[in-house]
Amino acid sequence: MTPLLPPEGWYSLPAGPENSITDVPGVAVGQVTVNRGQTISGVTAVLPHGGDLYRDPVPAGAAILNGFGKSLGLVQLMELGEISTPILLSNTFAVPVCANALIRAACLANPRIGNALPTVNPLVLECNDGGVNCIEGLGLTEDDANAALAAALPQPPQQGTVGAGQGMRSFGLSGGIGTASRRVEGWALGTLVLSNFGKAGELRVFGQRILPAAAATPAEKGSIIILYATDAPLDARQLTRIARRAAAGLGRLGSYLGHGSGDIAVAFSTARPGQGQALLPDDRLDPFFLAAVETLEQAVLNALWHARPMPTRDGQAGRVLAEIYQSPSSSPA
Amino acid sequence: MTPLLPPEGWYSLPAGPENSITDVPGVAVGQVTVNRGQTISGVTAVLPHGGDLYRDPVPAGAAILNGFGKSLGLVQLMELGEISTPILLSNTFAVPVCANALIRAACLANPRIGNALPTVNPLVLECNDGGVNCIEGLGLTEDDANAALAAALPQPPQQGTVGAGQGMRSFGLSGGIGTASRRVEGWALGTLVLSNFGKAGELRVFGQRILPAAAATPAEKGSIIILYATDAPLDARQLTRIARRAAAGLGRLGSYLGHGSGDIAVAFSTARPGQGQALLPDDRLDPFFLAAVETLEQAVLNALWHARPMPTRDGQAGRVLAEIYQSPSSSPA
Amino acid sequence: MTPLLPPEGWYSLPAGPENSITDVPGVAVGQVTVNRGQTISGVTAVLPHGGDLYRDPVPAGAAILNGFGKSLGLVQLMELGEISTPILLSNTFAVPVCANALIRAACLANPRIGNALPTVNPLVLECNDGGVNCIEGLGLTEDDANAALAAALPQPPQQGTVGAGQGMRSFGLSGGIGTASRRVEGWALGTLVLSNFGKAGELRVFGQRILPAAAATPAEKGSIIILYATDAPLDARQLTRIARRAAAGLGRLGSYLGHGSGDIAVAFSTARPGQGQALLPDDRLDPFFLAAVETLEQAVLNALWHARPMPTRDGQAGRVLAEIYQSPSSSPA
Amino acid sequence: MTPLLPPEGWYSLPAGPENSITDVPGVAVGQVTVNRGQTISGVTAVLPHGGDLYRDPVPAGAAILNGFGKSLGLVQLMELGEISTPILLSNTFAVPVCANALIRAACLANPRIGNALPTVNPLVLECNDGGVNCIEGLGLTEDDANAALAAALPQPPQQGTVGAGQGMRSFGLSGGIGTASRRVEGWALGTLVLSNFGKAGELRVFGQRILPAAAATPAEKGSIIILYATDAPLDARQLTRIARRAAAGLGRLGSYLGHGSGDIAVAFSTARPGQGQALLPDDRLDPFFLAAVETLEQAVLNALWHARPMPTRDGQAGRVLAEIYQSPSSSPA
Repeated sequence: MTPLLPPEGWYSLPAGPENSITDVPGVAVGQVTVNRGQTISGVTAVLPHGGDLYRDPVPAGAAILNGFGKSLGLVQLMELGEISTPILLSNTFAVPVCANALIRAACLANPRIGNALPTVNPLVLECNDGGVNCIEGLGLTEDDANAALAAALPQPPQQGTVGAGQGMRSFGLSGGIGTASRRVEGWALGTLVLSNFGKAGELRVFGQRILPAAAATPAEKGSIIILYATDAPLDARQLTRIARRAAAGLGRLGSYLGHGSGDIAVAFSTARPGQGQALLPDDRLDPFFLAAVETLEQAVLNALWHARPMPTRDGQAGRVLAEIYQSPSSSPA
Repeated sequence: MTPLLPPEGWYSLPAGPENSITDVPGVAVGQVTVNRGQTISGVTAVLPHGGDLYRDPVPAGAAILNGFGKSLGLVQLMELGEISTPILLSNTFAVPVCANALIRAACLANPRIGNALPTVNPLVLECNDGGVNCIEGLGLTEDDANAALAAALPQPPQQGTVGAGQGMRSFGLSGGIGTASRRVEGWALGTLVLSNFGKAGELRVFGQRILPAAAATPAEKGSIIILYATDAPLDARQLTRIARRAAAGLGRLGSYLGHGSGDIAVAFSTARPGQGQALLPDDRLDPFFLAAVETLEQAVLNALWHARPMPTRDGQAGRVLAEIYQSPSSSPA
Repeated sequence: MTPLLPPEGWYSLPAGPENSITDVPGVAVGQVTVNRGQTISGVTAVLPHGGDLYRDPVPAGAAILNGFGKSLGLVQLMELGEISTPILLSNTFAVPVCANALIRAACLANPRIGNALPTVNPLVLECNDGGVNCIEGLGLTEDDANAALAAALPQPPQQGTVGAGQGMRSFGLSGGIGTASRRVEGWALGTLVLSNFGKAGELRVFGQRILPAAAATPAEKGSIIILYATDAPLDARQLTRIARRAAAGLGRLGSYLGHGSGDIAVAFSTARPGQGQALLPDDRLDPFFLAAVETLEQAVLNALWHARPMPTRDGQAGRVLAEIYQSPSSSPA
Repeated sequence: MTPLLPPEGWYSLPAGPENSITDVPGVAVGQVTVNRGQTISGVTAVLPHGGDLYRDPVPAGAAILNGFGKSLGLVQLMELGEISTPILLSNTFAVPVCANALIRAACLANPRIGNALPTVNPLVLECNDGGVNCIEGLGLTEDDANAALAAALPQPPQQGTVGAGQGMRSFGLSGGIGTASRRVEGWALGTLVLSNFGKAGELRVFGQRILPAAAATPAEKGSIIILYATDAPLDARQLTRIARRAAAGLGRLGSYLGHGSGDIAVAFSTARPGQGQALLPDDRLDPFFLAAVETLEQAVLNALWHARPMPTRDGQAGRVLAEIYQSPSSSPA
């Protein structure tokens, strides 16, 4: 599928080679898409590096843009400023099985956890795919989570309604997994989203509405999870500042951070303390902030662009961005 | 001057009668524009109601979107969830004289402050107008602050380069004071900004760039202060949630919340506890959130639209939005 | 067992009738103590009221005193200011099964969750009992969690090494579940702790060390979970203020909020909005703050006082407070 | 005056050579005590190092334990994680003059501030000395602030009712300036307090009440400002963690962080990034946390111990700790 091309001059910063979170060296993504009876869901794994994150955590920060969410692991991430497991994305009610998978994997690799070593802080983020998936069936398993972890590769992930994104919806359309990246001086900033947010009619594509404002449609809910990766040497405070810029990116897309939307951003650096690089000073952060906004906008649009139509549980045929965007009669502008 | 009209269908919510923060009953605005030698600055006062705020505070919340700012009063506002003085906006180095003016006024009206009654928490918010004003001359006085307070009227304020906004700059153009409002069910949400933020070239007007992206131009710095007023019965937690939506509004305008920009939003309700109205439940907040985004976008555009050219201290003739927006050759789109 | 009596005049506020969190009308506690092979652990459930919390949530606030913890549910609790499930306490690696139990119970009682109704936010808090329990065996089950929920009664809970507290350790001694309460004007404030924190040698009992300072002993780690309940009409912001006072209570006991200790306090009110009571103003909070400090101190001492000796996995016979406190030769003062 | 000696074994860590914040190399303190008519107040200055803090800021963090306070500078301190001016302490209504003094000094030393360089973030912290001082007279001046700055020396400061502490009261007694320090491995942690908090009757001296609990006495209000200095290489996140431990120290003294008490802690390191020291890992923070608790307890007791009787404006002769502590009949224990 051809990518969704922005108008000339829309973005200020150059994309990375693959326009993917995996443009950050070492970052890998694995996904499993699950269709088992009424379970139409999946898991997406993001690995900051290929080693053992429990022994070699990465600096990280998070921003809870709107805390209507049930993620696990953010409390300790924000206290210690680090991520010490792979990151799993899935549906809201799969947080427990994903957490169990991360706990067991860490204990297996580090047998003294629990006894001589501290416990592990599994990082699991979620959106509600209950519009498509029978989420209340709790149909995902630890095996699904393990399969996503095992599938991780340092290659651009499939986008749209795949992995954790299979049943997600954004702005009344199919949503899901999207990615984008920017080159920032000598570094990369890459972004992966699980897009399940936005009120139908408020969507802006490159600044323009493509659906009519529809005051009567359901409220904005559903959530978005945003992961930022970079290889620039930044500490937890600086990465937190990057994560907070996600709110501006959501604004560009037409979001107002709806009451029922769990909008959470996490940022990490693959450059660990002790590797000898001096931290960048804060007055060099501006291009990273801009990259955070631009990649978020583009990653969400990519998710919607690549999404397949997914019928909803209440019997609606799912609509997708590609169909609307390419049909002039649908576009009020 | 004719208002800057949005394209058909750009906004989803209807504006209030005057499209001004003063559409919220009881809210008054007063401004003084100061030109004294090298002092090219001013003060803008916003009064949540006409009574004594020390004795009759209003519920309030705040969001520090980017804390590169020197405001006074936010710590206590966020702890107690209330505003207990008028709100003064001015330049960064005028915070002390503005605070003194508020302290003296409160002590005059409540002579037992300091002795039998608690001290007063002056709320003063600021941006740096040093591009135009000799800010380091500390030229504003308590009299200027008092004059702004005395001038307060429940009428739409003058916009652009007036009051605290005289020397402010946004996106490389003249900035300043702007306002807008929306009707939300039976209530009003009104917004006033002191706009001094944004990187030249990143500005979006109704979703479109009107200046070329200019990577080499100075970084985003300078700050924006955003005041939200409503007459809906909301508590401090809910008002804080409204204030946090300002980040999405800034995103629509092309901001990435630059490192050096002190971006701070304050929201208050004129409906006080004890007046007998039941609080709105959170699931009715969505239209207020949308109004917070729409009014912020429009208030900033109004500020830029009404701004006069202000020569900068380094000798550049100031440019204004009206000139660029109306000149086809300046507009790359 | 006789209670641990404070010196005359140690506490300023009167205890409630049972000196228990269940002195707050409607609050119930259920516990299950599990000994199955190497699984020496348990679950403690606290129910804010006897109805369906998903449909009838209670106002709540939380304070993350030190975020070295893996609790689930705090993000949404802090955004919405409410608790919408029973509260489960258990060991760190039992968070997933406890969450699953709460999810399933909510879905069973509200079959439209996931499809037509929003998902549920399970509240599960934890400490690491790995010194006693084979925590890495993940031996607790959803049935254990359900048993704790089913056992809930509005009666003073058993204290010490029971329920979630069975394997917990504090200040080098057996720890566990403790409770206390105070009468505050016409209301009650009741507290329940899961005590697993504190460095051996730093413990203060009624202000006095009873063990010698031992710089070489292991660092403070392990965590404490503190639950505050009240029937006073307070909102989420005020309850958050109460929760933050827990740090002062920990200080009285000799804690310094160790790096590896997940110290988290949650406060809720059984008085819901819409029940017709006016909120207390903030200037009436002081006795609640004092009650929060006094009950925390006493609840921890109660936990230690009632604890049985629990042998540790590394082969030490467990020591208990009662033995040391009553033996003059152990006491340097 | 002889120091107040703790019971044998009360503290776990060794004091620094002078038991003063100035045991941290480079830290200087200056004070001016003002008695002019009804102005019975003062200013205390703490300089993290002897150079220009605007050009050479120090890493810093802050904890707002209870935000009933009117300090200036915390918003930017918490965003950037640094302090870029000397720290001034004074009475609540002297914040503006102190801020002006810091602004003018920075502009004088860096003439391009305001024009080519960013504005300066003055850090001014305050307590309300209105029980003794005619605070509403706004009697302190920029000259007073400048005098405190000019008096700064790397020597132990005078303690008690001096400088900003002259009119301060704690636990119904004279309060003021106190200091203490600890040696932590090869580093120093030093603390200076402006003590104006605590409810009469709740005071604990080395764990024991020395005044009867007095439910009817005025509520806890008045505030405490706590400054932590260290030469250990720690970043802003770690220093924030240290600052948060102040709550435990206040608990040891009998405080419950009263509603009307602005309790704020700031921590800084004199080890700047770029000086070549590797940051300490978090698992080495525990002794710093313990030092933060111990020094806070001791610094407050030192303030009370050295305080002179100060008559209050409502005609009470001031009482002091030394008188009560040394008189057996006053001491219920």
